[in-house]
Amino acid sequence: MLQVVIIGSGNVAQHLIKAFSNNAEVQLKQVFARQPKCLLHLLPADKITGSYNEIVNADIYIIAVSDDAISEVSAQLPFNNRLVVHTSGSAALEAISNQNRRGVFYPLQTFSKNKAVDFTTIPICIESEFDEDFSTLKNLGYTLTKNVYEINSAQRQALHIAAVFVNNFTNHLYSIGSNICKENAISFDILRPLISETADKINTLNPLEAQTGPAVRNDNNTIQRHLDKLNDENQKDIYTLLTKSIQKAHEQKL
Amino acid sequence: MLQVVIIGSGNVAQHLIKAFSNNAEVQLKQVFARQPKCLLHLLPADKITGSYNEIVNADIYIIAVSDDAISEVSAQLPFNNRLVVHTSGSAALEAISNQNRRGVFYPLQTFSKNKAVDFTTIPICIESEFDEDFSTLKNLGYTLTKNVYEINSAQRQALHIAAVFVNNFTNHLYSIGSNICKENAISFDILRPLISETADKINTLNPLEAQTGPAVRNDNNTIQRHLDKLNDENQKDIYTLLTKSIQKAHEQKL
Repeated sequence: MLQVVIIGSGNVAQHLIKAFSNNAEVQLKQVFARQPKCLLHLLPADKITGSYNEIVNADIYIIAVSDDAISEVSAQLPFNNRLVVHTSGSAALEAISNQNRRGVFYPLQTFSKNKAVDFTTIPICIESEFDEDFSTLKNLGYTLTKNVYEINSAQRQALHIAAVFVNNFTNHLYSIGSNICKENAISFDILRPLISETADKINTLNPLEAQTGPAVRNDNNTIQRHLDKLNDENQKDIYTLLTKSIQKAHEQKL
Repeated sequence: MLQVVIIGSGNVAQHLIKAFSNNAEVQLKQVFARQPKCLLHLLPADKITGSYNEIVNADIYIIAVSDDAISEVSAQLPFNNRLVVHTSGSAALEAISNQNRRGVFYPLQTFSKNKAVDFTTIPICIESEFDEDFSTLKNLGYTLTKNVYEINSAQRQALHIAAVFVNNFTNHLYSIGSNICKENAISFDILRPLISETADKINTLNPLEAQTGPAVRNDNNTIQRHLDKLNDENQKDIYTLLTKSIQKAHEQKL
């Protein structure tokens, strides 16, 4: 059974704590948190420590803290030559102090405090400094999901950028849609089926083929009417830039 | 039983033909198409006409043609004072020639030729020039879906703009994500669960609350790293504009 220690108490740490607590193949031995009280709703007090010196032995140490804190936290671990991984999409493997064997265990999903996630559908991207640790990380990944991918640091950074586009920026477009509805006394519920279908469609069509709307039709009358109606300059700028970008992408296709 | 004639042979027309052909409460009497052959895979030849003079009597005439053609097509109908509606999200009710009683029957969904849609989940936005026609349109809508909304022309135009943001622009962000994956030899499959979850999340959280990522965290190191890594100027511009827009939206929230 793989023995795991988690270091951190934020969103990703808490989702991993929940996932490993219910996992028959993993023993979650301990969690380190600067404020141990934050985790008492998830774990018994004797499994939480706030002191680096009390960290116990384990096969894998998972640092789930903000990117900027990875170096500092990893440098404070009072041991050497153990397998220490971070969970970041954008930090390099080298962000971890080289006193230990380094790796990455990056679950590619959007984690919110108030929404449970189903780990079995989440892709986990792994990378290891030493070949001998790769299978350990792979095994740990497979205890959570079928989707384990070997992704190097350069690929992982590209993937994180792609994730910003398809997740963060997409969610912001939902937010703009919601604001436009609110300003016009329209229920946002009307847009929900469209949002689901848009996400669903690219499972059968590639996104370039799936593109519809006035931009790809070069329907300049509609585009101009939309720009005339929008009175928020920021929304206008986004509308203009994305319309041009769609048109450019489809010119290149021809 | 409501008797319907559809005018048009494009995407929306074909999806409506399929939906009404399987509908026990509606009699699809005829379809007008400039090129009747285009519809022979959907209808028997005697139900298709290419001549305005052969159009039969019906309760509702649905013009499902491109926005620019609505005026011309509606002006050529060889009858008066019947209920004629268009299916456009952005054309005004007045785009229809005033020789007939005008209305709008706008199914808010993204229709692709190669993907079936489930009409029972699609919102239909209706509007009528005369009160007496409103219930006819409402009844027609309810034969397809539970989600029938009364939406006036100004609201419909706003809704169409909101739909461009949450559908057309979102799909384009998927396309950019897919390109970034391709350039880095990463399977786009890794992003699919994230895309689904992003769309699903806003059914339980509002989009402003659901926002995650470097922009909303004001994580300028990550933002700068991403911009340094992107080498497509257009992708850089989109990244910069949407990052600023997310930050503005969250400043306003505070």
